[in-house]
Order: sequence, then C-alpha cells, then structure tokens
Amino acid sequence: QYGGLNKMSKENLIPQKNIKLNMSRRIRRTPFTNKVEECGVSDFTVVNHMLLPKGFKNTVEEDYWHLRENVQVWDVSCQRQVQISGPDAAKLVQKMTPRSIKKMETGKCFYIPILNESAGMINDPVLLKLDDDMFWISIADSDILLWAKGYAIGLNLDVNIEEPDVYPLAIQGPKSEDLMVSVFGEDIKKIKFFNYRVMDFMGTKQIIARSGYSKQGGFEIYLQGSHFGNELWDLIWKAGKPYNICPGSPNLIERIEGGLMSYGNEFNRSNNPLECGFEHLCCFTDEINYIGKDALKKILLDGPVRKICGIKFGGPETSACTVPYKVFSESAELIGEITSAIYSPRLAKNVGLGMLKSKYTEVDQAVLVSTSPGKYLGGVVSKLPFDEGS
Amino acid sequence: QYGGLNKMSKENLIPQKNIKLNMSRRIRRTPFTNKVEECGVSDFTVVNHMLLPKGFKNTVEEDYWHLRENVQVWDVSCQRQVQISGPDAAKLVQKMTPRSIKKMETGKCFYIPILNESAGMINDPVLLKLDDDMFWISIADSDILLWAKGYAIGLNLDVNIEEPDVYPLAIQGPKSEDLMVSVFGEDIKKIKFFNYRVMDFMGTKQIIARSGYSKQGGFEIYLQGSHFGNELWDLIWKAGKPYNICPGSPNLIERIEGGLMSYGNEFNRSNNPLECGFEHLCCFTDEINYIGKDALKKILLDGPVRKICGIKFGGPETSACTVPYKVFSESAELIGEITSAIYSPRLAKNVGLGMLKSKYTEVDQAVLVSTSPGKYLGGVVSKLPFDEGS
Repeated sequence: QYGGLNKMSKENLIPQKNIKLNMSRRIRRTPFTNKVEECGVSDFTVVNHMLLPKGFKNTVEEDYWHLRENVQVWDVSCQRQVQISGPDAAKLVQKMTPRSIKKMETGKCFYIPILNESAGMINDPVLLKLDDDMFWISIADSDILLWAKGYAIGLNLDVNIEEPDVYPLAIQGPKSEDLMVSVFGEDIKKIKFFNYRVMDFMGTKQIIARSGYSKQGGFEIYLQGSHFGNELWDLIWKAGKPYNICPGSPNLIERIEGGLMSYGNEFNRSNNPLECGFEHLCCFTDEINYIGKDALKKILLDGPVRKICGIKFGGPETSACTVPYKVFSESAELIGEITSAIYSPRLAKNVGLGMLKSKYTEVDQAVLVSTSPGKYLGGVVSKLPFDEGS
Repeated sequence: QYGGLNKMSKENLIPQKNIKLNMSRRIRRTPFTNKVEECGVSDFTVVNHMLLPKGFKNTVEEDYWHLRENVQVWDVSCQRQVQISGPDAAKLVQKMTPRSIKKMETGKCFYIPILNESAGMINDPVLLKLDDDMFWISIADSDILLWAKGYAIGLNLDVNIEEPDVYPLAIQGPKSEDLMVSVFGEDIKKIKFFNYRVMDFMGTKQIIARSGYSKQGGFEIYLQGSHFGNELWDLIWKAGKPYNICPGSPNLIERIEGGLMSYGNEFNRSNNPLECGFEHLCCFTDEINYIGKDALKKILLDGPVRKICGIKFGGPETSACTVPYKVFSESAELIGEITSAIYSPRLAKNVGLGMLKSKYTEVDQAVLVSTSPGKYLGGVVSKLPFDEGS
C-alpha cells in the first residue's frame, strides 16, 4: 500500500519554479524597496498589497545560518498598521479580539487573534497600545482596516481608523542588540520582549519594539515617515557592518523550527483560535465581550476538531509546500495536512507545521506524509519549537 | 530646463526586473493553476490573496495582437465572489454603493463603486443579482468580504456573507462568441453585454456573463465547483483549437488603450468616484442611502480636485510604471501622475492612465511626463478609449 514510502525521488517533489512577479503600482513599494533592490533582492512575495522581500543572493539555508549567528535587516513594511484612535478606540479593539486588553498598558505589544462572527481567524496581528485612546494593529495579510471600519460604521462608534505613514523595519539575529545599542544607545537594552520604547531618530520620535518574526531575538522599528526610509536603512546598514549584517527576510527554516505560524499558511478564516493553539489568548468570562464569543464558547465545549502541531518526517529534502501535503494515520486515514514544510539542515529532517485531527496530535504520534500523490514519507508529531532533542 | 525632453534613453527607464514570486499556500492557487502551469505560465501577480497569471510564452505585444484577433482563456479566479444572501441582502448591497440597485433585475451585472465613510474608493467590483435576496460581488483587490461582514455585524443585519466555491474563467477576444456557441449552444448569443444566463455544464448549472476585462468582447464563466476546473479548462481549450486559442491574461496595452481602470493602480481609497469618472454611477437623490453619501455630496459641490484621464506621450518606449510617472504642466507645475503606462504598437505612442488636476484634463492639454527624475517627455491629454484618430 505504501510502496513508495521513504523512497520518493526529488523528481516527485513540487518544483519551486522560477515564476516572475508581475509588478504594478497596485503591489505597493515600501520606503525601503530601493534599498533592497540595491542589495540584489531576487524574490518578493505580496502581503497586504505590498512587497515583502523574500530572497537575496543567498540560499534559504545560507540565510538561515546567517540569521542564527549574525544580524539581518528585514523590510517588513507590509506589516501595515491599522491605527484606531478616539473615545471608542479601546472599546472597538476589545470587540475585535478574544484576548482581554483591560490590563494592557501603554508601551506593551500583544499578539492577538482577530475573529469573525463564527470565531474564524481573520488575522493574528500584534497590537500596540500607544495611549488609552490610541492603538496600532500591526497586521498579517488581510484588510483589517476594512473590517474595523465596517464594524465601527455599522455600530456608529466614535473612532478614527486609518493606515498611518508607518513602515516597520526589523533587525533580527543574536547581534541585533549590539547593533541597536550602537545606533540608539544603551536604553535599547531596557526594552523587554513585546514591549516598545519611543526613541530619538533624526529629530523625530520613533517606536522601537523588541519583537519580530524569528526566534533569534531582535527589534522592530516602526518607522513613522516614509521619507526617512533611505536614512534609516543606511544608518542600520552602516552600523551593522561590524556585525556582519545582511539583508534578509522571515526565513522559512527558522520560522518552522521555531514553531512560528503564518496567517494564510497555517490557518485562515476556516480555523478557530482553539485549533491554532491560542486558548491562552481567549477570554471566556463575562469580563469582556467580542465578535465570535458565542461561537467560540461552543467550540470550547465540543473541543476543537483539529489542532496545529509540528511534524518531523524523513525522506528526501522537501521544498516549501505551495500545495499542502496530506497527512495520514498508519491505518491510512486522512488526518490532516502540512501547510508549511522545509528541510532543516540542523535537525537533518524535514519539518512541517499543519493541522491534524485532535486525537492524532500527541507528541510522537506516527504519521505518513504524502508530498505527492501515491508517495508517503514516515513521520512523527513533534513538540514545538522543534529542537535537537525532539 | 527640460534639456532631456524626448531624448531619454532606454537606460533611464525603470527596468522590468526578473524578480521571482516566492510561493506559499497563503498565495492561493486556483482550480486552473495546474492548467496554466502546463501552458508555460511565466509571470503571476497576486490579487485577493490568489494567483493571477500575467504572462506566458508571448511578449505583452504579441499577446496584445493575439487578443485583438483571436480568442484567449484567462484564469481570473482571483475575482473572488462575496456572496450576500438573506432578508437584508439588498439593503446591505445598497448601503455599500452609490449606484442605485432599486431597478436592478435578476440576470444583470452592474459595475459599482464601493465607498468608505469619506467616499474613498475601496473597490470597483461587478455586482451580479442572482435573486431578490442573493447577490455576488465579483471583487477587485481588497477584502470586501471583511468590509461587508464588519458592517453587517455592527448594524445587526440579517444576512449571510461568504466566499462561495466560485472561480471565474474569462473567454476574451473577437472569436469568443463562436467558441462559446460551439460549447454551450446558440443561446450564448442571447446573452447581452453585462447580463448573464444560467447554462448547463456537466450536469450543473453555471452562470455565464457577457463581460470581461478587455474591449475585445467576451464572456466570464463563474465556475461553481472548483473540482470541475480541469474539465472546464480542457473543454474550452479543445473547443478553442479551431479559433487559435491561447492562454492569456488582462493585457496591459489593450486595457490602457481601452481606458479600463485598475483598482489599486489608477485609484484607491484616497480617491473618490467623481475623480474616477464615475459620476453616472452615483445617485445623489433621497431615493437611496449609502456609506459615504454625505462626503460625496460635499465633493460634488466643490467639484473633484483631480480627474482620471488618458495621456499620450512621445519618447522611447515605456514599460509598466511600478513607480508612477510625475506629470507637469508646460509651466513646470506638478499636476498629477500617470499610474499605468505602456507603449502602444498600434498607435505608435506611449499611452498612460492617471489623475491630473481637473483644470488640466481637457483633451489636447499639453503636458510633460517625467519617467525618471530630470527627464521629461512631451505629451497631451487624450480622450478615452485611446484610438487612432485621437
């Protein structure tokens, strides 16, 4: 039945074709796009109608090792901000997420699920509290500006909702703190994880958070003022030379190993936060009310049908799965799919993230991963993040 | 002052670089992606988080001539449908657009602006009326599903809003009617422009409209049931052989010549419908109410500051402008920008679409187009669509 098991050849894998991205004004450039072009960007993807650089001269693996050992600068401007301000700002933000923001202080960053009426995930942004009546929602790939505005208009809330002239630049990697101290001073060290501080830059005040889409440590500079793009990039670049800085981007190996989910890849609006492992971010008490609460309560009672987990599997090296890999139990039951996968050179295994039926999500559960029709690779459920011991 | 006028070399033009599109599950494939890959697709863009093929083996110019003379099949699945149904469906749809739908009949397609509270354009879809309480909104590139849902939840409307399993396939070009008749029968001829009929296909009922994003005539099949993708593509492909069918996509030369605007390119939420030339689609009487009406009335009184127009300009051949070209008056006043442009081989001129200050939008107004800093090409405002006489 599984004759092809672990014998799949590279020819059977879905090829990463050299497909060009057709450019237009609709796919918005960023304040840093000129700079990443100067750096020899080779790949982009599109997030929030904006370019996200995804590859430079290095391979994904070279980039992975560099990120783990040095420091990189990433143009993550596509993390667009939805700015919500005004008397009803806090009320609106709370309606948009199951995570309680009652005790959230100014200066904090909260990772929050955003749900629709049936508790489907419509985004998983980072919320920044700038003041009691002023928030930024740093979004993944969906138009939360429209969601928030539509809802606020329907409910006649007293808020202003706009996309400010803010473009995050990420500094990621173990040497990022030293680099940032050399640019912004010792106060950088005082910024705790998922907190931000307001720092001086060319006569302006800029928000800098200790955060980012890697597990290697780092910062995100929420550059306000697109006309400062060149200056900020050059400043970081020059200061980074002693630290072996490279241009980079969210690295597929690093993020999968680190168990970092990606909206649109691991989950979308057909998934609820309990499937995504976000129980700890969901408040079910009467303390708060939010869109999707009733639906989510029901899901909690029944228990989520599926859950996200990590899966290690053998066989030849896989490339990113643009078509999810189906996952089967050893008795050939279809139990889910892997939505992001890649070969980990450090763990010498393929690693993937995906949703499986809940009863199959115990660590060490044996599974079969089908990377193409009729071909099956042996694997096991792994704890997240993936590490050498797992 | 304009020393470089009309003497710009090709080196000064922004190059169309071979930038790869980094693929992931988030950039959704369509029921036809396998088929366009078989056909040798070389370029994609991303619309509504979905792949839109933009190039095959032909150049844009070869593709242009083919489209004008033959028939093409386009995977425009990215025109996602927002399905609005239920007792309050018509009420919600009317709230979303300044175009009156009071007299809209089932079977009709309406091109509609969708506005935010300040009358900014947030989409320009085609609305299909399927029944008195059932509509599809076939959207351009923004998440109108979230806008409609947010608003409906805020207003507590009795509607269902979802993205159905529907993927439009366009058949475009002068031979499209003959091809479609050969597949679906003579009734195809009875479909009037911007009307649809329900036709039989493999035991299912499918909506076919006479519409599409070209001026060469054609149809859009709103395939319901993604599992029929291969069959539908193969059927069209086989039937198209006698008509010299090619895979294609919205063609930049053809659409600019035809004056077809593109949401995100020619306009976005910073533009109102009066700037876009959509006055005839805006109702200002008490007959209807909609989001943005008060703001739009004010703009009507003051008159729009800018207007979309066509601009012909000389000089070397331009490629698509990913960075808009600034447009100046002859007295060096910055009067607007061109947001889409290309060389028209038929008119032997560069043609562009863009917004200029209203007083400069008379046909034959002389302008200067700056395709790169310090370089200026002479041009004139043209009527739309562009044609040989203009």
